[in-house]
Amino acid sequence: MKESGIGSQKIIRRKGDGEFVYLPDELTIEEPLEIRVGRKPIATTMRTPGHDEELAAGFLLSEGIVRGRDQIASVSISGDNRVGAELTDGVKLKLNSTKRFGTISSSCGLCGKTSIDAIRQNFPAVRSNDIRIDIETLLSLPETLRKAQSDFARTGGIHAAGIFGMDGQLKIAREDIGRHNAVDKAIGRAFLDELVPLKRHLLLVSGRASFEILQKALAAGIPIVAAVSAPSSLAVELARDSNQTLIGFLRPPSFNIYTHIERVILGAL
Amino acid sequence: MKESGIGSQKIIRRKGDGEFVYLPDELTIEEPLEIRVGRKPIATTMRTPGHDEELAAGFLLSEGIVRGRDQIASVSISGDNRVGAELTDGVKLKLNSTKRFGTISSSCGLCGKTSIDAIRQNFPAVRSNDIRIDIETLLSLPETLRKAQSDFARTGGIHAAGIFGMDGQLKIAREDIGRHNAVDKAIGRAFLDELVPLKRHLLLVSGRASFEILQKALAAGIPIVAAVSAPSSLAVELARDSNQTLIGFLRPPSFNIYTHIERVILGAL
Repeated sequence: MKESGIGSQKIIRRKGDGEFVYLPDELTIEEPLEIRVGRKPIATTMRTPGHDEELAAGFLLSEGIVRGRDQIASVSISGDNRVGAELTDGVKLKLNSTKRFGTISSSCGLCGKTSIDAIRQNFPAVRSNDIRIDIETLLSLPETLRKAQSDFARTGGIHAAGIFGMDGQLKIAREDIGRHNAVDKAIGRAFLDELVPLKRHLLLVSGRASFEILQKALAAGIPIVAAVSAPSSLAVELARDSNQTLIGFLRPPSFNIYTHIERVILGAL
Repeated sequence: MKESGIGSQKIIRRKGDGEFVYLPDELTIEEPLEIRVGRKPIATTMRTPGHDEELAAGFLLSEGIVRGRDQIASVSISGDNRVGAELTDGVKLKLNSTKRFGTISSSCGLCGKTSIDAIRQNFPAVRSNDIRIDIETLLSLPETLRKAQSDFARTGGIHAAGIFGMDGQLKIAREDIGRHNAVDKAIGRAFLDELVPLKRHLLLVSGRASFEILQKALAAGIPIVAAVSAPSSLAVELARDSNQTLIGFLRPPSFNIYTHIERVILGAL
């Protein structure tokens, strides 16, 4: 991953010994990105610049606006902090679905228990019942993802998302100031490369696993989601209902398995 | 803060010695909250239940939908995961402003440099030029906020936001799975209590300081924002332009000052 998402400026730092120093410092760049479909702006997300076409493609997939790669004719940067997708002739933009997801959306399709059902309708449960990962491989993933990040990203807390094969090989890694954007970029790359559904893959996120992360993984057909930190209650619920294996607090040598343990080869118990 | 935002379930844990155990575990509750104004749903946010009226009030303030306490007639829970605000007679709902903010909104009022200007028009720069905080007080804040959190919240990574006086006294502390919700709850409480603008107060957040956090603090008239982790580039830019002091990596005995250092009493340099 490149360091293009980093800016610098001068700051005053109080050091551990109480001394003040004036020095250059690095900052994660955060800028708004407007995502358009055709001429219509459908969302603005605060993101770290870079891989914007992937972010848009991943967003369109994970919000249920498109279902197959063939529904997108093109995705391209169309201005300063603006990316536009053109749908294939005959594919209609269903804006209701757009508004139902996202952290802050302008209508509620997510309220209460019925929302979970609604999402299951939109994204079928994963199948991938023959997929297994062994413990040693699982334990190796956080370090592999960390190595793919820049030093700054590791220390500055930029979120990372990695898509791995069952052999522990890192296929795609992306970073962003927003965890959901990092995931959209990663699955967007896979989507553009016609690798979705990612039936034999695992998604690892460097932070927590919220409902939104599980929903995006589900949209991409990913059967195993692992997080370095905690999952939320609704993430666990969605994973259980969607036949997704959810692993949290993946901090070698420990981890927690919240749902669908059958995809982890535990060895002799 | 109460532990009402916590649920429990059984998990499989791999311990440090490689042994697997099946045990009860706690999870942060994440559920959607629909915010309505009158009968109109204006936003859905994924939040940890509790203090929902405050969250709604803070959201209405920080999104620029209302400007004064007298514009809200009432805020009340109006159903399962739904909170409704009634505006005072004669106050009109300006939905354009609603759509301009938020992490994901359905039109772009935030794109590029002009967005910063637009926000400045909406929220005037803070004045509070006579406000100062001394270093010892500043260094005491993270521990004070941590003590107000439950054990689970500290370890499970629930975000906390605290509003402090210049003497280091914690006035309001709120938690949420979303950092922006924790801030909305805290400023919402102050707003409902007619304490806004919080001219002589500091906002501390337990994680990073994004643009959105600075914007919410600005809406509440808070002159100093401190974060335990890193600020983003756009947060620094907004703070500089809005006459807000921004402190990051507040990890005693160290911290960084990004903007408007004049509000920190540095002593002899």
